[in-house]
Amino acid sequence: MTSKTKKIAETTIVRLSIYCRTLNQLKKEGVKTVSSFEMGKKIGYNAAQIRKDLSFFGTFGKPGKGYLVNELTDEISQILGVDRKWNVALIGAGNLGVALLSYPVFKERGFNIISVFDNDVRKIGKMIGTNTIQDISELSDAVKALNIKIGIISVPAQASHGIANLLISSGVTAILNFAPSMITVPEGVELRNADPCTELECLTYFLNNVAKVRVDRDLLAEVVG
Amino acid sequence: MTSKTKKIAETTIVRLSIYCRTLNQLKKEGVKTVSSFEMGKKIGYNAAQIRKDLSFFGTFGKPGKGYLVNELTDEISQILGVDRKWNVALIGAGNLGVALLSYPVFKERGFNIISVFDNDVRKIGKMIGTNTIQDISELSDAVKALNIKIGIISVPAQASHGIANLLISSGVTAILNFAPSMITVPEGVELRNADPCTELECLTYFLNNVAKVRVDRDLLAEVVG
Repeated sequence: MTSKTKKIAETTIVRLSIYCRTLNQLKKEGVKTVSSFEMGKKIGYNAAQIRKDLSFFGTFGKPGKGYLVNELTDEISQILGVDRKWNVALIGAGNLGVALLSYPVFKERGFNIISVFDNDVRKIGKMIGTNTIQDISELSDAVKALNIKIGIISVPAQASHGIANLLISSGVTAILNFAPSMITVPEGVELRNADPCTELECLTYFLNNVAKVRVDRDLLAEVVG
Repeated sequence: MTSKTKKIAETTIVRLSIYCRTLNQLKKEGVKTVSSFEMGKKIGYNAAQIRKDLSFFGTFGKPGKGYLVNELTDEISQILGVDRKWNVALIGAGNLGVALLSYPVFKERGFNIISVFDNDVRKIGKMIGTNTIQDISELSDAVKALNIKIGIISVPAQASHGIANLLISSGVTAILNFAPSMITVPEGVELRNADPCTELECLTYFLNNVAKVRVDRDLLAEVVG
Protein backbone atom coordinates (compact mmCIF):
# COMPACT_ATOMS: atom_id res chain seq x y z
CA MET A 1 0.00 0.00 0.00
CA THR A 2 1.57 3.30 -1.06
CA SER A 3 1.05 6.67 0.58
CA LYS A 4 -0.87 7.58 -2.58
CA THR A 5 -3.75 5.39 -1.44
CA LYS A 6 -4.36 7.56 1.58
CA LYS A 7 -5.09 10.61 -0.51
CA ILE A 8 -7.87 9.04 -2.56
CA ALA A 9 -11.01 11.19 -2.45
CA GLU A 10 -14.10 9.76 -0.78
CA THR A 11 -16.12 10.23 -3.97
CA THR A 12 -13.63 8.01 -5.81
CA ILE A 13 -14.26 5.22 -3.29
CA VAL A 14 -18.02 5.62 -3.73
CA ARG A 15 -17.59 5.24 -7.48
CA LEU A 16 -15.23 2.28 -6.97
CA SER A 17 -17.97 0.55 -4.98
CA ILE A 18 -20.38 1.14 -7.84
CA TYR A 19 -17.88 -0.15 -10.42
CA CYS A 20 -17.44 -3.24 -8.26
CA ARG A 21 -21.19 -3.85 -8.14
CA THR A 22 -21.45 -3.37 -11.91
CA LEU A 23 -18.54 -5.72 -12.59
CA ASN A 24 -20.08 -8.35 -10.32
CA GLN A 25 -23.27 -8.08 -12.32
CA LEU A 26 -21.35 -8.42 -15.62
CA LYS A 27 -19.51 -11.43 -14.16
CA LYS A 28 -22.85 -13.07 -13.29
CA GLU A 29 -24.04 -12.43 -16.84
CA GLY A 30 -20.95 -14.21 -18.16
CA VAL A 31 -19.39 -11.11 -19.76
CA LYS A 32 -15.63 -11.62 -20.18
CA THR A 33 -14.34 -8.15 -21.15
CA VAL A 34 -15.72 -4.65 -20.86
CA SER A 35 -14.43 -1.27 -22.02
CA SER A 36 -14.53 1.84 -19.85
CA PHE A 37 -16.95 3.26 -22.41
CA GLU A 38 -19.38 0.31 -22.10
CA MET A 39 -19.15 0.36 -18.32
CA GLY A 40 -19.69 4.11 -18.23
CA LYS A 41 -22.76 3.80 -20.42
CA LYS A 42 -24.19 1.21 -18.05
CA ILE A 43 -23.86 3.38 -14.95
CA GLY A 44 -24.03 6.91 -16.28
CA TYR A 45 -20.38 7.96 -15.87
CA ASN A 46 -18.03 8.93 -18.66
CA ALA A 47 -15.26 6.57 -19.65
CA ALA A 48 -12.48 9.06 -18.78
CA GLN A 49 -13.75 9.29 -15.21
CA ILE A 50 -13.63 5.50 -14.83
CA ARG A 51 -10.12 5.29 -16.30
CA LYS A 52 -8.94 8.11 -14.05
CA ASP A 53 -10.44 6.52 -10.92
CA LEU A 54 -8.87 3.14 -11.67
CA SER A 55 -5.48 4.71 -12.48
CA PHE A 56 -5.08 5.67 -8.82
CA PHE A 57 -4.80 2.00 -7.95
CA GLY A 58 -2.68 0.58 -10.73
CA THR A 59 -2.76 -0.33 -14.40
CA PHE A 60 -5.81 -2.32 -15.41
CA GLY A 61 -6.97 -3.39 -18.85
CA LYS A 62 -5.37 -2.81 -22.23
CA PRO A 63 -5.98 0.13 -24.58
CA GLY A 64 -8.47 -0.92 -27.24
CA LYS A 65 -9.12 -4.26 -25.51
CA GLY A 66 -10.85 -3.16 -22.34
CA TYR A 67 -10.80 -4.79 -18.92
CA LEU A 68 -10.98 -8.48 -18.08
CA VAL A 69 -14.17 -8.59 -16.00
CA ASN A 70 -13.16 -11.37 -13.58
CA GLU A 71 -9.72 -9.92 -12.99
CA LEU A 72 -10.91 -6.34 -12.45
CA THR A 73 -13.73 -7.50 -10.15
CA ASP A 74 -11.18 -9.31 -7.97
CA GLU A 75 -8.78 -6.37 -7.95
CA ILE A 76 -11.43 -3.81 -6.96
CA SER A 77 -12.91 -6.20 -4.39
CA GLN A 78 -9.47 -6.44 -2.83
CA ILE A 79 -8.98 -2.67 -2.82
CA LEU A 80 -12.40 -2.14 -1.21
CA GLY A 81 -11.80 -4.96 1.26
CA VAL A 82 -14.93 -6.80 0.14
CA ASP A 83 -13.01 -9.94 -0.87
CA ARG A 84 -13.59 -11.11 2.71
CA LYS A 85 -16.45 -11.28 5.23
CA TRP A 86 -16.90 -8.60 7.90
CA ASN A 87 -18.64 -9.03 11.22
CA VAL A 88 -20.89 -6.06 11.95
CA ALA A 89 -22.70 -4.94 15.11
CA LEU A 90 -26.03 -3.15 14.77
CA ILE A 91 -27.28 -0.94 17.58
CA GLY A 92 -30.93 0.01 17.72
CA ALA A 93 -33.60 -2.54 16.82
CA GLY A 94 -36.23 0.03 15.86
CA ASN A 95 -37.94 0.20 12.47
CA LEU A 96 -34.83 1.17 10.57
CA GLY A 97 -32.61 -1.26 12.48
CA VAL A 98 -34.92 -4.20 11.79
CA ALA A 99 -35.10 -3.24 8.12
CA LEU A 100 -31.31 -3.10 7.87
CA LEU A 101 -31.14 -6.47 9.56
CA SER A 102 -33.35 -8.04 6.94
CA TYR A 103 -31.64 -6.28 4.04
CA PRO A 104 -30.47 -9.22 1.89
CA VAL A 105 -27.78 -7.27 0.01
CA PHE A 106 -25.60 -6.90 3.13
CA LYS A 107 -25.00 -10.63 3.31
CA GLU A 108 -24.49 -10.89 -0.45
CA ARG A 109 -21.73 -8.28 -0.21
CA GLY A 110 -20.03 -9.98 2.74
CA PHE A 111 -21.44 -7.92 5.62
CA ASN A 112 -22.58 -10.21 8.39
CA ILE A 113 -24.62 -8.45 11.08
CA ILE A 114 -23.61 -10.86 13.80
CA SER A 115 -24.78 -8.95 16.89
CA VAL A 116 -27.80 -6.71 17.49
CA PHE A 117 -28.21 -4.55 20.58
CA ASP A 118 -30.93 -2.44 22.12
CA ASN A 119 -31.64 -0.97 25.55
CA ASP A 120 -35.41 -1.61 25.44
CA VAL A 121 -36.28 -4.48 27.79
CA ARG A 122 -39.32 -5.30 25.63
CA LYS A 123 -37.00 -6.01 22.71
CA ILE A 124 -34.05 -7.71 24.43
CA GLY A 125 -34.16 -11.48 23.96
CA LYS A 126 -36.45 -11.35 20.94
CA MET A 127 -35.39 -12.95 17.66
CA ILE A 128 -35.13 -11.13 14.34
CA GLY A 129 -34.30 -13.69 11.68
CA THR A 130 -31.35 -15.58 13.13
CA ASN A 131 -30.32 -12.74 15.49
CA THR A 132 -31.32 -12.45 19.13
CA ILE A 133 -31.50 -8.85 20.31
CA GLN A 134 -28.94 -8.45 23.10
CA ASP A 135 -28.78 -6.02 25.99
CA ILE A 136 -26.61 -3.02 25.13
CA SER A 137 -24.59 -3.77 28.27
CA GLU A 138 -23.24 -6.86 26.47
CA LEU A 139 -21.91 -4.82 23.53
CA SER A 140 -18.36 -4.32 24.69
CA ASP A 141 -17.69 -8.00 25.38
CA ALA A 142 -19.32 -9.10 22.13
CA VAL A 143 -17.36 -6.62 20.01
CA LYS A 144 -14.09 -7.84 21.52
CA ALA A 145 -14.97 -11.55 21.37
CA LEU A 146 -16.16 -11.42 17.77
CA ASN A 147 -13.46 -8.99 16.57
CA ILE A 148 -16.12 -6.60 15.25
CA LYS A 149 -14.62 -3.54 13.54
CA ILE A 150 -17.81 -2.09 12.00
CA GLY A 151 -20.80 -0.70 13.90
CA ILE A 152 -24.13 0.46 12.46
CA ILE A 153 -25.99 2.99 14.61
CA SER A 154 -29.76 3.23 14.16
CA VAL A 155 -30.82 4.73 17.48
CA PRO A 156 -32.54 8.08 18.14
CA ALA A 157 -30.31 11.15 17.58
CA GLN A 158 -29.83 11.99 21.25
CA ALA A 159 -28.52 8.48 22.02
CA SER A 160 -26.14 8.26 19.05
CA HIS A 161 -23.13 9.99 20.62
CA GLY A 162 -23.09 7.68 23.63
CA ILE A 163 -23.40 4.62 21.42
CA ALA A 164 -20.56 5.79 19.19
CA ASN A 165 -18.30 6.28 22.21
CA LEU A 166 -19.24 2.83 23.52
CA LEU A 167 -18.46 1.24 20.14
CA ILE A 168 -15.12 3.02 19.87
CA SER A 169 -14.02 2.19 23.41
CA SER A 170 -14.86 -1.46 22.65
CA GLY A 171 -12.62 -1.53 19.57
CA VAL A 172 -14.86 -0.58 16.65
CA THR A 173 -13.02 1.66 14.17
CA ALA A 174 -15.63 2.15 11.44
CA ILE A 175 -19.13 3.50 12.07
CA LEU A 176 -22.14 3.92 9.80
CA ASN A 177 -24.51 6.36 11.49
CA PHE A 178 -28.16 6.40 10.43
CA ALA A 179 -29.20 8.67 13.31
CA PRO A 180 -30.00 12.25 12.34
CA SER A 181 -27.03 13.55 14.30
CA MET A 182 -23.42 14.55 13.87
CA ILE A 183 -21.07 12.34 15.79
CA THR A 184 -17.46 13.35 16.33
CA VAL A 185 -14.93 10.53 16.27
CA PRO A 186 -11.24 10.51 17.14
CA GLU A 187 -8.51 10.07 14.52
CA GLY A 188 -8.20 6.44 13.51
CA VAL A 189 -11.96 5.95 13.44
CA GLU A 190 -13.91 6.35 10.20
CA LEU A 191 -17.48 7.61 10.26
CA ARG A 192 -20.09 7.83 7.55
CA ASN A 193 -23.44 9.50 8.02
CA ALA A 194 -26.33 7.93 6.17
CA ASP A 195 -29.22 9.94 7.55
CA PRO A 196 -32.00 9.77 4.93
CA CYS A 197 -33.22 13.29 5.82
CA THR A 198 -29.94 14.90 4.81
CA GLU A 199 -30.28 13.13 1.46
CA LEU A 200 -33.80 14.48 1.00
CA GLU A 201 -32.64 17.99 1.92
CA CYS A 202 -30.00 17.87 -0.81
CA LEU A 203 -32.88 17.13 -3.18
CA THR A 204 -35.07 19.99 -1.93
CA TYR A 205 -32.08 22.33 -2.24
CA PHE A 206 -31.95 21.30 -5.87
CA LEU A 207 -35.72 21.74 -6.35
CA ASN A 208 -35.65 25.08 -4.57
CA ASN A 209 -32.62 26.58 -6.29
CA VAL A 210 -31.11 24.88 -9.31
CA ALA A 211 -34.39 23.62 -10.79
CA LYS A 212 -36.02 27.01 -10.19
CA VAL A 213 -33.17 28.86 -11.86
CA ARG A 214 -33.61 26.58 -14.83
CA VAL A 215 -37.36 27.31 -15.05
CA ASP A 216 -36.70 31.06 -14.72
CA ARG A 217 -34.14 30.83 -17.50
CA ASP A 218 -36.55 28.93 -19.74
CA LEU A 219 -39.30 31.48 -19.12
CA LEU A 220 -36.85 34.29 -19.90
CA ALA A 221 -35.85 32.53 -23.11
CA GLU A 222 -39.51 32.35 -24.08
CA VAL A 223 -40.03 36.05 -23.37
CA VAL A 224 -36.95 37.31 -25.17
CA GLY A 225 -36.99 34.60 -27.82
CA MET B 1 -31.02 33.41 -6.98
CA THR B 2 -27.63 34.19 -8.49
CA SER B 3 -25.68 31.96 -10.80
CA LYS B 4 -23.29 31.50 -7.88
CA THR B 5 -25.83 29.27 -6.18
CA LYS B 6 -25.63 26.72 -8.95
CA LYS B 7 -21.94 26.12 -8.37
CA ILE B 8 -22.26 25.19 -4.71
CA ALA B 9 -20.61 21.83 -4.06
CA GLU B 10 -22.79 18.91 -2.97
CA THR B 11 -20.73 18.49 0.20
CA THR B 12 -21.55 22.08 1.18
CA ILE B 13 -25.27 21.30 0.92
CA VAL B 14 -24.80 18.20 3.08
CA ARG B 15 -23.09 20.34 5.72
CA LEU B 16 -25.80 23.00 5.40
CA SER B 17 -28.40 20.34 6.20
CA ILE B 18 -26.41 19.40 9.30
CA TYR B 19 -26.07 23.04 10.37
CA CYS B 20 -29.82 23.42 9.96
CA ARG B 21 -30.49 20.36 12.15
CA THR B 22 -28.06 21.66 14.78
CA LEU B 23 -29.61 25.13 14.76
CA ASN B 24 -33.09 23.64 15.11
CA GLN B 25 -31.87 21.73 18.14
CA LEU B 26 -30.34 24.92 19.65
CA LYS B 27 -33.62 26.75 18.94
CA LYS B 28 -35.55 24.04 20.81
CA GLU B 29 -33.13 24.42 23.73
CA GLY B 30 -33.84 28.16 23.82
CA VAL B 31 -30.33 29.21 22.76
CA LYS B 32 -30.44 32.73 21.25
CA THR B 33 -26.96 33.19 19.75
CA VAL B 34 -24.21 30.82 18.70
CA SER B 35 -20.71 31.39 17.36
CA SER B 36 -19.25 29.40 14.48
CA PHE B 37 -16.74 28.07 17.00
CA GLU B 38 -19.45 26.78 19.38
CA MET B 39 -21.44 25.30 16.51
CA GLY B 40 -18.32 23.67 15.09
CA LYS B 41 -17.47 22.13 18.42
CA LYS B 42 -20.97 20.67 18.64
CA ILE B 43 -20.80 18.94 15.27
CA GLY B 44 -17.11 18.31 14.77
CA TYR B 45 -16.36 20.86 12.05
CA ASN B 46 -13.98 23.76 12.36
CA ALA B 47 -15.37 27.27 12.61
CA ALA B 48 -13.67 28.49 9.43
CA GLN B 49 -15.44 25.75 7.43
CA ILE B 50 -18.84 26.84 8.77
CA ARG B 51 -18.14 30.53 8.03
CA LYS B 52 -16.94 29.66 4.53
CA ASP B 53 -20.00 27.50 3.78
CA LEU B 54 -22.40 30.19 4.97
CA SER B 55 -20.56 32.93 3.05
CA PHE B 56 -21.70 31.34 -0.23
CA PHE B 57 -25.26 32.31 0.62
CA GLY B 58 -24.90 35.80 2.10
CA THR B 59 -23.71 37.62 5.20
CA PHE B 60 -24.90 36.09 8.44
CA GLY B 61 -23.99 36.94 12.02
CA LYS B 62 -21.65 39.62 13.32
CA PRO B 63 -17.93 39.23 14.08
CA GLY B 64 -17.46 38.61 17.76
CA LYS B 65 -21.21 38.35 18.36
CA GLY B 66 -22.03 35.15 16.51
CA TYR B 67 -25.23 34.16 14.75
CA LEU B 68 -28.79 34.77 15.88
CA VAL B 69 -30.09 31.20 16.13
CA ASN B 70 -33.71 31.84 15.08
CA GLU B 71 -32.72 34.04 12.16
CA LEU B 72 -30.02 31.70 10.83
CA THR B 73 -32.31 28.67 11.20
CA ASP B 74 -34.94 30.41 9.06
CA GLU B 75 -32.40 31.53 6.46
CA ILE B 76 -30.85 28.08 6.04
CA SER B 77 -34.27 26.42 6.03
CA GLN B 78 -35.23 28.71 3.16
CA ILE B 79 -32.03 27.96 1.24
CA LEU B 80 -32.56 24.20 1.67
CA GLY B 81 -36.25 24.50 0.83
CA VAL B 82 -37.27 22.91 4.12
CA ASP B 83 -39.33 25.92 5.21
CA ARG B 84 -42.25 24.22 3.47
CA LYS B 85 -43.82 20.76 3.26
CA TRP B 86 -43.01 18.37 0.42
CA ASN B 87 -45.21 15.56 -0.84
CA VAL B 88 -43.15 12.44 -1.47
CA ALA B 89 -43.95 9.16 -3.26
CA LEU B 90 -42.34 5.96 -2.02
CA ILE B 91 -42.02 3.00 -4.34
CA GLY B 92 -41.40 -0.44 -2.89
CA ALA B 93 -43.13 -1.50 0.32
CA GLY B 94 -40.53 -4.10 1.29
CA ASN B 95 -38.59 -4.09 4.56
CA LEU B 96 -36.67 -0.91 3.83
CA GLY B 97 -39.70 0.86 2.34
CA VAL B 98 -41.86 0.12 5.37
CA ALA B 99 -39.08 1.29 7.69
CA LEU B 100 -38.73 4.55 5.78
CA LEU B 101 -42.48 5.00 5.95
CA SER B 102 -42.45 4.76 9.72
CA TYR B 103 -39.36 6.94 10.11
CA PRO B 104 -40.65 9.80 12.31
CA VAL B 105 -37.93 12.28 11.35
CA PHE B 106 -39.23 12.63 7.79
CA LYS B 107 -42.47 14.21 8.98
CA GLU B 108 -40.65 16.39 11.53
CA ARG B 109 -38.50 17.78 8.70
CA GLY B 110 -41.49 18.44 6.42
CA PHE B 111 -41.32 15.35 4.21
CA ASN B 112 -44.78 13.85 3.83
CA ILE B 113 -44.79 10.41 2.22
CA ILE B 114 -48.24 10.80 0.78
CA SER B 115 -48.33 7.85 -1.63
CA VAL B 116 -46.84 4.37 -1.44
CA PHE B 117 -46.70 1.99 -4.38
CA ASP B 118 -45.82 -1.64 -4.96
CA ASN B 119 -46.44 -4.21 -7.68
CA ASP B 120 -47.03 -7.13 -5.30
CA VAL B 121 -50.73 -8.03 -5.25
CA ARG B 122 -50.32 -9.38 -1.71
CA LYS B 123 -49.30 -5.90 -0.55
CA ILE B 124 -51.57 -3.65 -2.62
CA GLY B 125 -54.52 -2.38 -0.56
CA LYS B 126 -52.83 -3.00 2.79
CA MET B 127 -52.41 -0.15 5.27
CA ILE B 128 -49.07 0.95 6.72
CA GLY B 129 -49.78 3.60 9.30
CA THR B 130 -52.07 6.05 7.49
CA ASN B 131 -50.93 4.98 4.01
CA THR B 132 -52.65 2.45 1.80
CA ILE B 133 -50.27 0.66 -0.54
CA GLN B 134 -51.34 1.46 -4.08
CA ASP B 135 -50.86 -0.43 -7.32
CA ILE B 136 -47.80 0.85 -9.21
CA SER B 137 -50.09 1.39 -12.21
CA GLU B 138 -51.68 4.28 -10.28
CA LEU B 139 -48.35 6.07 -9.78
CA SER B 140 -48.46 8.40 -12.74
CA ASP B 141 -51.94 9.80 -11.98
CA ALA B 142 -51.15 10.19 -8.28
CA VAL B 143 -47.86 12.02 -8.91
CA LYS B 144 -49.62 14.46 -11.21
CA ALA B 145 -52.69 14.96 -9.00
CA LEU B 146 -50.67 15.52 -5.82
CA ASN B 147 -47.90 17.56 -7.49
CA ILE B 148 -45.26 15.17 -6.17
CA LYS B 149 -41.73 16.24 -7.10
CA ILE B 150 -39.77 13.79 -4.91
CA GLY B 151 -39.69 10.01 -5.28
CA ILE B 152 -38.01 7.48 -2.98
CA ILE B 153 -37.07 4.19 -4.64
CA SER B 154 -36.73 1.15 -2.39
CA VAL B 155 -37.26 -1.68 -4.87
CA PRO B 156 -34.84 -4.45 -5.90
CA ALA B 157 -31.90 -3.26 -8.04
CA GLN B 158 -33.16 -4.74 -11.29
CA ALA B 159 -36.50 -2.90 -11.02
CA SER B 160 -35.03 0.48 -10.07
CA HIS B 161 -34.33 1.79 -13.58
CA GLY B 162 -37.89 1.19 -14.74
CA ILE B 163 -39.31 2.85 -11.62
CA ALA B 164 -37.04 5.88 -12.08
CA ASN B 165 -38.19 6.28 -15.67
CA LEU B 166 -41.83 5.98 -14.60
CA LEU B 167 -41.34 8.62 -11.88
CA ILE B 168 -39.59 11.01 -14.27
CA SER B 169 -42.17 10.63 -17.03
CA SER B 170 -44.86 11.37 -14.42
CA GLY B 171 -43.22 14.65 -13.39
CA VAL B 172 -40.91 13.75 -10.51
CA THR B 173 -37.63 15.72 -10.70
CA ALA B 174 -35.83 14.58 -7.55
CA ILE B 175 -35.11 10.93 -6.71
CA LEU B 176 -33.61 9.28 -3.66
CA ASN B 177 -32.52 5.78 -4.67
CA PHE B 178 -32.02 3.15 -1.97
CA ALA B 179 -31.67 0.33 -4.48
CA PRO B 180 -28.14 -1.02 -4.94
CA SER B 181 -28.02 0.22 -8.52
CA MET B 182 -26.84 3.15 -10.58
CA ILE B 183 -29.69 4.94 -12.26
CA THR B 184 -29.04 7.44 -15.02
CA VAL B 185 -31.34 10.45 -15.09
CA PRO B 186 -31.72 13.18 -17.70
CA GLU B 187 -30.64 16.79 -17.11
CA GLY B 188 -33.13 18.59 -14.92
CA VAL B 189 -33.59 15.60 -12.64
CA GLU B 190 -31.57 15.29 -9.44
CA LEU B 191 -30.64 11.87 -8.12
CA ARG B 192 -29.04 10.81 -4.87
CA ASN B 193 -27.97 7.26 -4.14
CA ALA B 194 -28.38 6.12 -0.56
CA ASP B 195 -27.48 2.48 -0.88
CA PRO B 196 -26.30 1.32 2.56
CA CYS B 197 -23.83 -1.17 1.02
CA THR B 198 -21.86 1.55 -0.74
CA GLU B 199 -21.53 3.30 2.62
CA LEU B 200 -20.25 0.12 4.25
CA GLU B 201 -17.78 -0.41 1.41
CA CYS B 202 -16.33 3.06 2.00
CA LEU B 203 -15.74 1.91 5.58
CA THR B 204 -14.08 -1.36 4.60
CA TYR B 205 -11.87 0.58 2.18
CA PHE B 206 -10.76 2.61 5.18
CA LEU B 207 -10.25 -0.48 7.35
CA ASN B 208 -8.39 -2.25 4.54
CA ASN B 209 -6.10 0.59 3.49
CA VAL B 210 -5.89 3.71 5.60
CA ALA B 211 -6.22 1.99 8.97
CA LYS B 212 -3.78 -0.73 7.87
CA VAL B 213 -1.23 1.84 6.73
CA ARG B 214 -1.51 3.45 10.13
CA VAL B 215 -0.90 0.14 11.89
CA ASP B 216 2.06 -0.63 9.61
CA ARG B 217 3.50 2.81 10.34
CA ASP B 218 3.08 2.29 14.07
CA LEU B 219 4.78 -1.10 13.91
CA LEU B 220 7.61 0.42 11.87
CA ALA B 221 8.00 3.20 14.43
CA GLU B 222 8.25 0.55 17.13
CA VAL B 223 10.90 -1.36 15.18
CA VAL B 224 13.07 1.62 14.24
CA GLY B 225 12.27 3.62 17.39
